[in-house]
Amino acid sequence: VFDFRSDNVVEAHPAVMAAMLAANTGTQTSYGDDDYSRRMADGLRAVFATDCAAFPIATGTAANALALALLAGPGQRIVAQDSAHVVDGEEGAPEFYSGATLRTVATEGGKFRMDALAEAIAEVPGGAVTLTQATELGTLYTPAEIRAIADLAHAKGMLVHVDGSRFANAVVALDAHPADLTWRAGVDALSFGATKNGAAMAEAVIFFPQHLGDDFPRRRKRGGHTVSKMRFVSAQLEAYLAGDLWLANARHANAMAARLGAGLAAIPGVSLAAPVQANEVFVRAAPALLNGLEARGFQFFSRQEGMFRLVCAWNTSDAAVDAIIAAIRELAAERAAAE
Amino acid sequence: VFDFRSDNVVEAHPAVMAAMLAANTGTQTSYGDDDYSRRMADGLRAVFATDCAAFPIATGTAANALALALLAGPGQRIVAQDSAHVVDGEEGAPEFYSGATLRTVATEGGKFRMDALAEAIAEVPGGAVTLTQATELGTLYTPAEIRAIADLAHAKGMLVHVDGSRFANAVVALDAHPADLTWRAGVDALSFGATKNGAAMAEAVIFFPQHLGDDFPRRRKRGGHTVSKMRFVSAQLEAYLAGDLWLANARHANAMAARLGAGLAAIPGVSLAAPVQANEVFVRAAPALLNGLEARGFQFFSRQEGMFRLVCAWNTSDAAVDAIIAAIRELAAERAAAE
Amino acid sequence: VFDFRSDNVVEAHPAVMAAMLAANTGTQTSYGDDDYSRRMADGLRAVFATDCAAFPIATGTAANALALALLAGPGQRIVAQDSAHVVDGEEGAPEFYSGATLRTVATEGGKFRMDALAEAIAEVPGGAVTLTQATELGTLYTPAEIRAIADLAHAKGMLVHVDGSRFANAVVALDAHPADLTWRAGVDALSFGATKNGAAMAEAVIFFPQHLGDDFPRRRKRGGHTVSKMRFVSAQLEAYLAGDLWLANARHANAMAARLGAGLAAIPGVSLAAPVQANEVFVRAAPALLNGLEARGFQFFSRQEGMFRLVCAWNTSDAAVDAIIAAIRELAAERAAAE
Amino acid sequence: VFDFRSDNVVEAHPAVMAAMLAANTGTQTSYGDDDYSRRMADGLRAVFATDCAAFPIATGTAANALALALLAGPGQRIVAQDSAHVVDGEEGAPEFYSGATLRTVATEGGKFRMDALAEAIAEVPGGAVTLTQATELGTLYTPAEIRAIADLAHAKGMLVHVDGSRFANAVVALDAHPADLTWRAGVDALSFGATKNGAAMAEAVIFFPQHLGDDFPRRRKRGGHTVSKMRFVSAQLEAYLAGDLWLANARHANAMAARLGAGLAAIPGVSLAAPVQANEVFVRAAPALLNGLEARGFQFFSRQEGMFRLVCAWNTSDAAVDAIIAAIRELAAERAAAE
Repeated sequence: VFDFRSDNVVEAHPAVMAAMLAANTGTQTSYGDDDYSRRMADGLRAVFATDCAAFPIATGTAANALALALLAGPGQRIVAQDSAHVVDGEEGAPEFYSGATLRTVATEGGKFRMDALAEAIAEVPGGAVTLTQATELGTLYTPAEIRAIADLAHAKGMLVHVDGSRFANAVVALDAHPADLTWRAGVDALSFGATKNGAAMAEAVIFFPQHLGDDFPRRRKRGGHTVSKMRFVSAQLEAYLAGDLWLANARHANAMAARLGAGLAAIPGVSLAAPVQANEVFVRAAPALLNGLEARGFQFFSRQEGMFRLVCAWNTSDAAVDAIIAAIRELAAERAAAE
Repeated sequence: VFDFRSDNVVEAHPAVMAAMLAANTGTQTSYGDDDYSRRMADGLRAVFATDCAAFPIATGTAANALALALLAGPGQRIVAQDSAHVVDGEEGAPEFYSGATLRTVATEGGKFRMDALAEAIAEVPGGAVTLTQATELGTLYTPAEIRAIADLAHAKGMLVHVDGSRFANAVVALDAHPADLTWRAGVDALSFGATKNGAAMAEAVIFFPQHLGDDFPRRRKRGGHTVSKMRFVSAQLEAYLAGDLWLANARHANAMAARLGAGLAAIPGVSLAAPVQANEVFVRAAPALLNGLEARGFQFFSRQEGMFRLVCAWNTSDAAVDAIIAAIRELAAERAAAE
Repeated sequence: VFDFRSDNVVEAHPAVMAAMLAANTGTQTSYGDDDYSRRMADGLRAVFATDCAAFPIATGTAANALALALLAGPGQRIVAQDSAHVVDGEEGAPEFYSGATLRTVATEGGKFRMDALAEAIAEVPGGAVTLTQATELGTLYTPAEIRAIADLAHAKGMLVHVDGSRFANAVVALDAHPADLTWRAGVDALSFGATKNGAAMAEAVIFFPQHLGDDFPRRRKRGGHTVSKMRFVSAQLEAYLAGDLWLANARHANAMAARLGAGLAAIPGVSLAAPVQANEVFVRAAPALLNGLEARGFQFFSRQEGMFRLVCAWNTSDAAVDAIIAAIRELAAERAAAE
Repeated sequence: VFDFRSDNVVEAHPAVMAAMLAANTGTQTSYGDDDYSRRMADGLRAVFATDCAAFPIATGTAANALALALLAGPGQRIVAQDSAHVVDGEEGAPEFYSGATLRTVATEGGKFRMDALAEAIAEVPGGAVTLTQATELGTLYTPAEIRAIADLAHAKGMLVHVDGSRFANAVVALDAHPADLTWRAGVDALSFGATKNGAAMAEAVIFFPQHLGDDFPRRRKRGGHTVSKMRFVSAQLEAYLAGDLWLANARHANAMAARLGAGLAAIPGVSLAAPVQANEVFVRAAPALLNGLEARGFQFFSRQEGMFRLVCAWNTSDAAVDAIIAAIRELAAERAAAE
């Protein structure tokens, strides 16, 4: 009965829902020219301590695709981690929106292998490098690592995008200022996630050199992403930022993952496939154990033989974490006894 | 202080918001494979009395573009009313998603001139004819008119799409069964609007020959429109259909428009640019009168010299209607006295 | 046995073929970085008396689509004559390459109605205006007319493209310097035709503000138009320009059209649908007469009831012109006698 | 003074040029509906001993992109060898034309690693697998190897494309019937190269299940590849097939490469990077040796440190081969003496 499949299968935070409800009053200019959208953009400028361009959008795939479309043009290159969501989870949205070609680079621990990246962009016709923060393996790029990537990219005339669907988790885990993980490290555009961390359906696209976003409104409309009653997206983001709810949510999710990781690492026959740095735990265990776990009603995604992913969300409870640790411990012990 | 700009500047219906709130409980499979989305699709199949394919989506532009992309392929033709929203209001979304070319046909009273349509599709390489119901001039196609268009299109190997962002208004105005305005009249796909009639951000795309929608999920994801917490879109549509809220909302908006139209038609110096058949009123009056109206705080869109549009929504009040009638009557009288 | 269907059904000029043959010696760097391509570009810069960017390409549709793709971007607008080749003869190539939407403007005598053009671009999101020179009705824009269009377009932030598949015919007919019909009149890019005027398969794309073509090589390759043995395209263009062959060819074709037009205008029951200004003659005659003409073995395209097109090429003979005049005269007389 | 850079830097075969010249007589229906194109298609049906659809086209990139566009649709997958021309040499043309995403698979000796291919297509949304024959490393797929790939692909609902820009070299090297390397082994579409083997600018796209090509003419026109005087492309292909010129040319090129490979393999300090199976020789040697070779005026492409490619063409002479062998032998000896 406990669901660790993803941080997007869970509820939105009550404050986010309340904000949507509160926004449902009076008339507002449609298509994003409303008070909520203006305040939301101001809020993001404050968070990032710079005069960036910030736009609300309803999905993470659209955020990535539209951001990349303004960094990489037709025939140019989008270079991504081989494990990236833009590679396998978006049915070609980045290529569709940009007209650029997407090529992958080998990763280690979810992050670019720098030698492979350097080789991949040695002779590119311009475009963008996109990295994921936190990565698809739940790991993190430090500001210095981002800076190294950005320097490499910029030297080749490429721009840098961060897929930050779990950006909040990275910020609290690294205890870094959002600016240090983005524009101060050379990042040109960010998909700022909220849906996985407490929003219902809201993300933002941020361009740090503001002019990079000049064409965003037209491209967004052409993609069908200019929500007419945009206030309902922007109000979510306002609530998400208010009182640093976004950081509190991420802090909780990360703490739950840390607790889960520590608990599992102590179990004989179970090991972590990657260090737990944000809110995801990747575990290796015998396939039979996974079957047992499913039989007890726990939900999770297994990626390949004997490797599975447990994701903690803003509302994951201690009880859920402890329950799955206990279940895995029992199943592992049963297996050990049987051998 | 009264806002007649559009039916998308107003609030969502409280029942819709309540449904979103109620959906915010427990976990649900992401990306549309949730209970709410299943029930919503069942609901639409009941409404249309056929086993159609029905998909939730967040915006009307995306609904149109994705529906058309499955009816018309690269190098084929999308033929639209010259006044259609897909022509001037979507920055090329239909072309972007379909790869088809869009060509326009002359209209009369917002509707296709049948001779011009026949000529336009005399030699086309296949594709789709798209009509708007209710039209951008607030007028309606009868089932017989739709059937005539569909017969013309089908004879040329083209499919038929209806942009129904105001479909509910048409259904109640024509007192027709939804099936009679769609598949029974030869319509292949429908953008079923909800946002303009009480939803916050929700529409549906419906394919009547179900197989036409087989590729929809992949195309939707590629467009970045597969909302991860889709329940929040589908729950709106469920509430919208429940107890025929959609019809009640449209009936009210239409009634307000009728009251408004009747009131204005009686004023000397003011005339209607089109018959009031749904929830929009197109008015001709002296430019000075429009300026006076704006000066009194009324909000509306003027399209060209001396012609303006007043849109009634699900929550437009008698008081608002009467107030703007009174204001226009006064301004017209002032002008008459001054001459 | 005489073929007036189009100027692309005829042979290439022997000098063009000889140049291809002569180019078939030794090795040359592939993909356009060859001696012939360099000389061809120099030749065009001399012809246009400016330091423009000039690229060889094999087809007119590709020339138009690629030129427009660099003038108008995704979601922007391409505005064209309603009778333009880019509208009806290219299966959406301009939209495909540019991502822009194409909208048409009413014409008179094959040329933009200036009031309609002004209205069409009153509120556009940028892009390009494209005109055809000579037009699809065989008429011509004067330098002053082009300048007026360019001023209108530039004032709206739009660029100007000329589809010059019959540019040579315009140059000689207007007795104008090529520069006066292009950059000096505000034209930003030109599809410089050759295939219809003596080449086998060769056109050029010219950008007058040179930097507009910076992205051309990559876009051309992405479109599959970077011919590996490009020398065979460029050598044609070299020969086409050498000794002003292009002007001589056009002069002949125009003279034949003039002779044909004069001959036909003198026949009772036959009238010209447009003034003969270049190498095309548009004729109105009774449908029965057209059938008779076909029965005698003449080839031509009829567009609509009682209207047909006769195109003269670089190699159309006096005999062919006189033969078709005589045939039409006889058929008209027969008809008159029968009535 | 000897040029081994590529088989597309050399002349066309005189018989091909003669055929173009001979085609330059009389009028022909434009845009591919001409006698030459019909005969060329018949010729290819005879070569492949099946009733396939065959279309002329001017470039190899266009052949690949258009073929793939009919096998893989928007959001589907094109799976290619990591070293394939479609990956690095076409600026995204396959993605542009198809709307599909391109993903690469690891190769060994230029050919798919079958385990990696199986993994890559384990969960794809349909589309196409494309292989190169001969490969970019000058190696060959046997009919059995192609069949294994086709079975794997078809089992996943994917179709199979062969980039045969050097298809003739493969046919003669494998001494196989063209049918055995294509449709009899499960291939659905072929880019049939001619330009690299004696044509000036001509390729063909062949669909073995004929209906797969139904949409080709429209897609080709939309891409700007419907050459108006298509006879000049088709006449080249006719001459290329006549008297098996294509096989004779390839046989010569392969023989020269074999001679070259054997000569180089015997030189101490020089080794072959891949077996010489078609007309390309990949050599490993000290960078200093390559510099020396360039200093003596030989032309070739080096790919990475100490590895270079020598390509033999239909007209490469014994003398050229012997000269470069001698030069390399001397340079290697000099280096050995110096050490």
